[in-house]
Parts: sequence; C-alpha cells; structure tokens
Amino acid sequence: MAAVRARTVLLTGSNRGIGLELVKQLLGAPRPPAWIFATCRDPEGPRAQELRDLASKHPNLVLVKLDVANPSAITDAVKIVEGKLNGMGLNLLINNAGIYTPTASLETVDAEEMIRTYKTNAVGPMLMAQAFLPLLKKAAQESTEKGLSCSKAAIINISTIMGSIEKTPESFFKPVISYRCSKAALNMLTKCQALTYGEAGILCVALHPGWVKTDMGSQEADLTVDTSVRGLLSVLPILSEKHSGTLLNWEGKAIPW
Amino acid sequence: MAAVRARTVLLTGSNRGIGLELVKQLLGAPRPPAWIFATCRDPEGPRAQELRDLASKHPNLVLVKLDVANPSAITDAVKIVEGKLNGMGLNLLINNAGIYTPTASLETVDAEEMIRTYKTNAVGPMLMAQAFLPLLKKAAQESTEKGLSCSKAAIINISTIMGSIEKTPESFFKPVISYRCSKAALNMLTKCQALTYGEAGILCVALHPGWVKTDMGSQEADLTVDTSVRGLLSVLPILSEKHSGTLLNWEGKAIPW
Repeated sequence: MAAVRARTVLLTGSNRGIGLELVKQLLGAPRPPAWIFATCRDPEGPRAQELRDLASKHPNLVLVKLDVANPSAITDAVKIVEGKLNGMGLNLLINNAGIYTPTASLETVDAEEMIRTYKTNAVGPMLMAQAFLPLLKKAAQESTEKGLSCSKAAIINISTIMGSIEKTPESFFKPVISYRCSKAALNMLTKCQALTYGEAGILCVALHPGWVKTDMGSQEADLTVDTSVRGLLSVLPILSEKHSGTLLNWEGKAIPW
Repeated sequence: MAAVRARTVLLTGSNRGIGLELVKQLLGAPRPPAWIFATCRDPEGPRAQELRDLASKHPNLVLVKLDVANPSAITDAVKIVEGKLNGMGLNLLINNAGIYTPTASLETVDAEEMIRTYKTNAVGPMLMAQAFLPLLKKAAQESTEKGLSCSKAAIINISTIMGSIEKTPESFFKPVISYRCSKAALNMLTKCQALTYGEAGILCVALHPGWVKTDMGSQEADLTVDTSVRGLLSVLPILSEKHSGTLLNWEGKAIPW
C-alpha cells in the first residue's frame, strides 16, 4: 500500500473519532509528515488529553486551537501555522470537523439547528480553504510534480454518503435533515473548489469515511475507526486530477451526487 | 395542454419575476384556483404595486405578508391563510422566494453571505412546508384521487440547474457559490420531503425554471418569464408519484443531482 507523502498536513476536529485516528496513523506512517497541525476547538480541555499525550511524544505534531465556525479563530490559526512552516507551504488540508444531530427529522428540525450545522459542516470548510489558500498555493508552486496529488497540494473534505441525494432513500431510516443538507452543500462546495483551485495546482476531493464506530457514528456502526482511516489514508496517494471534484468512499469507490 | 387543477395555491416571492408571472398565469387559466395566496416580504411597498393591481381585480387573489427567512412571520401567515380557507386544505405550496448574489465567487464569498442565502433558499422552504403541513395534509385527505398530484397536495420547490453538482462545470463561468450551495441543499431537502411527506399523500418536486430574463436572471438570460412560467405550469399537471423527490426543468426533463 502506497503511503501519502505530504510533508505538511493540517486537520480539523482532530481530538477524537476519525480526526484523532488520522493523526495517529499519520504519525505511525513509514515516512511521517514533517509537520502535522492537529486542530480542535479546545486543545487544553479534557477532551483533547489523548492528542496532548501524542504531542508530548512527537515533536512534529503541533496542536492548534481552532473552531471552524469562527472566522477570526481561523485567521489566528493561519498565523500560527505560517510561523511554524517558516516559508514552507501546506500540502494537505483535511476538513474533518463536523457536527451531527441524530434527532433532526423534518418533524423536529428548526432554523437554528439547520444554520448551526451548515455553519460548521459547509461554511467552515469553505473558510478554511480560503484562509489556507496562500499556503496551499505555495506548496503547489514548490512541487516539481505534474498534475494534481495529495503530496503536492490538496483539500480533502470529509463528507458522507448521507450527503448523496441519489442514495438518500437507502439511509433515510436516519433522516438527519440538517446534516444531509449541509453535506449536500459541502459536496457542491467541493466541486466548486475543484473548478476554482485546480488551476493553482490544488486537488479537491470529498471523502466518505463509511459508517464508523465513533461518538458520532455510535456503536451500531459497521466499520472500526482503524479500518476507516486505514482506507482513507490508502485512497489519498492514488488521487489525481481525474478525481478532483468527486465524492469517493474509504475504498476509493465513486459515490453519485 | 392540461392545466393544473389545484383549488388552492400559495406562492412565496410573488411580487416580481417568476412569482408574479405564476400569479398572472394562474389567474388567467381556464379554471383558475378558488384561492391564490400570493406572499411577499412587503405587499404594501412600492415593489408590490403590480400584485396589488391584480388583487383589486381578482377577488380570489389574497396578498399575504411573509418573509421566509423569518420563522414567526411564517406562523402569522399560516393563521391568515387558515382563516380564508375556512376548513379547506391547501393543494399547492410553491416555494419560489429566493436570493442570489451574482458576485459570490470563492475569492469573495464570506460566512455571512453563505448563511444569509442558505436561510432564504433552503431553510425557508423547509419551514414553509413544516408550517403549512397540516393544510397540505387536509387537502390530501379531502381528495379522492389515487397516487400523488399537484391537484391533490404538493410542495414545489423552485430550484435551479445551478444546484446540480453534476452540471456545475457547464455553468461555472458564474461561480455564485452561496447560491449553488444553498440550492444543492434545497435539492437534498426536496428528496427528504418526498420521503417524509409521501405517506401523507403529498408530492414533493424541485423545478428548474430555466435561465429567465428577470431581475435575478438579468437581460442576458435566454428565456422570457412568460415562456418559463408557461413551461412550469404545463409540467405541474403531469407530475405523479414517480416524479416525487426529483429535479425537473421547465420542460419536464430530469436534471441529475
């Protein structure tokens, strides 16, 4: 299995679930990144203990405070990352942070819940890409590789099959309206990012991690977080310009919109 | 050409563009609806003069103040409509109100613009359907028709091909990120509404009116508002359960997600 060769990586929502496991597996790779920026809302809080333990053992892991629903927090984070990179670019931005309200059916969902979820799941990834664009462009310019790849410069939006309109009937036993609508918008955003940022040498892909046993996915889910993340990390190195602007699952299979 | 036989119709954003033309053509139909509730943000204001002129000539046209971005305004409107209907149901809800910021590219769009557009274009139609659901259900129960139809009970969400992720490359010379993301979410909402409300006898369809010469579409557009609305009104009567949860254009052709 090819490993992703991104020298510098930034992830959001990295204190638990898929985000935390991505950090662990990236750290354990045969050639780990020179810098991993693991961001979360409260890196000093009790829910980031595991991330802090990892950082104490791995000098290439940097914890950064960041709430993707807060535009000024994103600007602050860019400055910290820029300082550490010291002139280098950012190869890989993984927009993993997301929220999910399991009870949001059409009977119960309200405007506030719709907007709160959209803010984190769709607007957040948009703002992150805007803010880190100069660093992603720098990474693309530094690279001698042709075409697009995750080792050159890429935006990976962690999406879901639940954002697929086509596939909705198969999973509608969980209506989760606010989540589905926000993720359909994230899929659209990914397509728009691919069309906008491709010329600058940046790959943009949406990935479905599967239904994973995490706090979000619950213990009924069918994949362990280890399997899902192993899958996602084996998909990253195979991505090229032909995948930009698509939605793929953790095994690299295309999902219809 | 079959005409839509809905006895009672409510439209949002009906003071200009496609909304106003829908009102005109519905009033001019061989068998016009018993009640047309034409809603807009400011029915007393200068931009609703044409609508007021129509109302003065047509006693079956009722103007109702309604901003779909304001949940309490929706509740107020339901009470007025319920009073007029006097025990009858609502056959047809047309969620036409929408906003569009032509300059919103990934370079310029911000969180506020994303959320403002989502609120009107996706959350508004969701709240409208929730609020008018009892009246739509009543119409479905009153009907002796089998299956689903616009003359029985239906929610029509005016969407756009610009909300089609698949078709985005063809129209990306106008990026309009906030609009595209909100409309992809509206398409997802339509699918979820079809899956939720179908059992109650309510048809749910998203319609693309074409690129229309209106304030929103500009004069470069390729369809007159007359042609577009004539098309939309000739699609309504052919809709049945097989169309519920799909996106069709003004000629009744399916558009991929």
